[in-house]
Amino acid sequence: MSIGILGGGQLGYMLALAGYPLGMRFRFLDPSPEAPVGRIAPRVTGDFADRGALDKFANGLQVVTYEFENVPFDSAQWLAKRVSVYPPPAALETAQDRLREKQLFEKLKIPTTPYASLSSAYDLDTAIKKIGLPAVVKTRRMGYDGKGQWVLKTPEDVKAAKEILPKQAFVLEKFVAFERELSIIAVRGKSGETAFYPLVENYHREGILRLSLAPARSVAPEIQRAAEYAAVQVLDSLNYVGVLAIEFFELDGELLANEMAPRVHNSGHWTIEGAVTSQFENHLRAISGLPLGQTTPIGASAMINLIGELPDMAEVLAVPSTHLHLYGKEPRPGRKLGHVTLRAPSVDRLFSRFASLPPFFHRPDFCLDGVKS
Amino acid sequence: MSIGILGGGQLGYMLALAGYPLGMRFRFLDPSPEAPVGRIAPRVTGDFADRGALDKFANGLQVVTYEFENVPFDSAQWLAKRVSVYPPPAALETAQDRLREKQLFEKLKIPTTPYASLSSAYDLDTAIKKIGLPAVVKTRRMGYDGKGQWVLKTPEDVKAAKEILPKQAFVLEKFVAFERELSIIAVRGKSGETAFYPLVENYHREGILRLSLAPARSVAPEIQRAAEYAAVQVLDSLNYVGVLAIEFFELDGELLANEMAPRVHNSGHWTIEGAVTSQFENHLRAISGLPLGQTTPIGASAMINLIGELPDMAEVLAVPSTHLHLYGKEPRPGRKLGHVTLRAPSVDRLFSRFASLPPFFHRPDFCLDGVKS
Repeated sequence: MSIGILGGGQLGYMLALAGYPLGMRFRFLDPSPEAPVGRIAPRVTGDFADRGALDKFANGLQVVTYEFENVPFDSAQWLAKRVSVYPPPAALETAQDRLREKQLFEKLKIPTTPYASLSSAYDLDTAIKKIGLPAVVKTRRMGYDGKGQWVLKTPEDVKAAKEILPKQAFVLEKFVAFERELSIIAVRGKSGETAFYPLVENYHREGILRLSLAPARSVAPEIQRAAEYAAVQVLDSLNYVGVLAIEFFELDGELLANEMAPRVHNSGHWTIEGAVTSQFENHLRAISGLPLGQTTPIGASAMINLIGELPDMAEVLAVPSTHLHLYGKEPRPGRKLGHVTLRAPSVDRLFSRFASLPPFFHRPDFCLDGVKS
Repeated sequence: MSIGILGGGQLGYMLALAGYPLGMRFRFLDPSPEAPVGRIAPRVTGDFADRGALDKFANGLQVVTYEFENVPFDSAQWLAKRVSVYPPPAALETAQDRLREKQLFEKLKIPTTPYASLSSAYDLDTAIKKIGLPAVVKTRRMGYDGKGQWVLKTPEDVKAAKEILPKQAFVLEKFVAFERELSIIAVRGKSGETAFYPLVENYHREGILRLSLAPARSVAPEIQRAAEYAAVQVLDSLNYVGVLAIEFFELDGELLANEMAPRVHNSGHWTIEGAVTSQFENHLRAISGLPLGQTTPIGASAMINLIGELPDMAEVLAVPSTHLHLYGKEPRPGRKLGHVTLRAPSVDRLFSRFASLPPFFHRPDFCLDGVKS
């Protein structure tokens, strides 16, 4: 089985590492000659919109998938005429655009935050009349890790926003004072079978995921069911194949769908050691038409992102039951360079293990205290 | 950290897959242009004795290790003058020669089977006078997977052996009607710290390992201690760095050391899913001077070798808690093509799961019944 992956970052890296034991072969397409996957798989260096590069990339592949959701929809469609592309390009098109995503949630009666669509920042006043303040302006396209988002609290913020916002289309969302963010990693196979990991608690700083706790604590069975039901609705409506992540806000015992990602997701990295089958293996099983693997968690896991700088490797590995994942990228502020997963038989044992992490991790950025409180 | 590995088979393949998440880079040397590692790492194709190839291979590496113990000792020594080589070449020299291995066990007072050394098959009669029948003739060098071994039961066997045995040096060992074969995977770091996985039960057919059950059942604490003590003696005496495997015969509540392997070992493959840290990661941690990882098992595991032919992949993956590892080699009789690891919370649950394996596995070769009886 030869699998092509659009995008050559850490998600592609971890997909390949999960697929090699299954005898799969990989080829990547990435615009950067520095993409980390170059060390572990053949790679075509070229733009995602370059038909010549796409052609070279697709030659001889059995299936193509993406680790990056901002691949041009046209390119995905062009590839789909030549080779199986999973998840289907229509899912990519929906997930690339916050407005389409919101409209899909609405159509499927999945609760989401109230929103208004703006063709440019000039429509802000009308939108705010509808939604009220505080609110969040989000670009319809290309937002990630908190980029392309602005919180508006006061009429002054709105006035300032009209000056500084780029000239593009937005969605304005009501600001939700949620209790916590939960996400679900779901997977759907070629014949429509589905599997779900337990909901995970996510902690962010500056818009970037810092820590995921899996499984999430004190999740009522109806909350897990609601998340799975939302995921199934989305998966079936898009005739989806592969892993899909949906992020929710939890508020007053209810879930509001925030956004989705048509790919393996940072809040699912804990599954490498913390679940019977990882999200990466399950994505590959799904797109290859193989049976899905068990999503049962093994104890409690905390996944901690390493952003911008790396700790001393030996100090991290000296902590019992700690698993280090480095992505082979050059350090740069705000860049995801790796992650650490701690696993323990229970969440209490997990939290007590935090104390043995080196001082590097005991800064507020890592949310080790945040998650415990 | 750039690591060179001599040998490009499945052990090297699994070492690289364990090292990539730690940010390690790998280069392989293997005489075959078909070596499976070629898909996942740069590789120099050349003979292990070819100084030009060795030079090209070693250039820029921080450490060299082996996944194959029949690398010429001279080559290991030559490399050790240029780059750190772990385990030390002296360990390789001992493990390559059954006589040296036996002499080391004797020197360290590690119980082993009675034996005699023969410079050729012509000395058989003298050796048999010392050891008695039944006995096993083993070539001093290059034996593996039951190759280079002949069981002698009767004087007629001895007579025939003198005719057919190749002209080389042998060891004659007393044939031991052992109750079971146990092995220990041990690891020693650069500063002398050691860690041990629990003893494993091994089941062979035609001299090839078919199934390992981990941890071994009903192991008295003094048996585990005896195995660890034997391993520590060998590790310390050789100033060893890396993973070492020792196989033992269990007989009347005692262990007899049978042989050792100066590398990661087939009876340790279960550690990928069945232990907190795999033997592969621990070998890499050791040779890189990093702290050793926990060797604690997670439930009970059965590792089943796939030899000569492969089952239907989808049927295997449909069995819950089953992990498939394919080595990317062309099927050939007697060749190790992959392995399957089943994991369960207890050995009873593990055995009951055997029933869900597809018919392919329910042949005596796989020892599924053998291990249960």
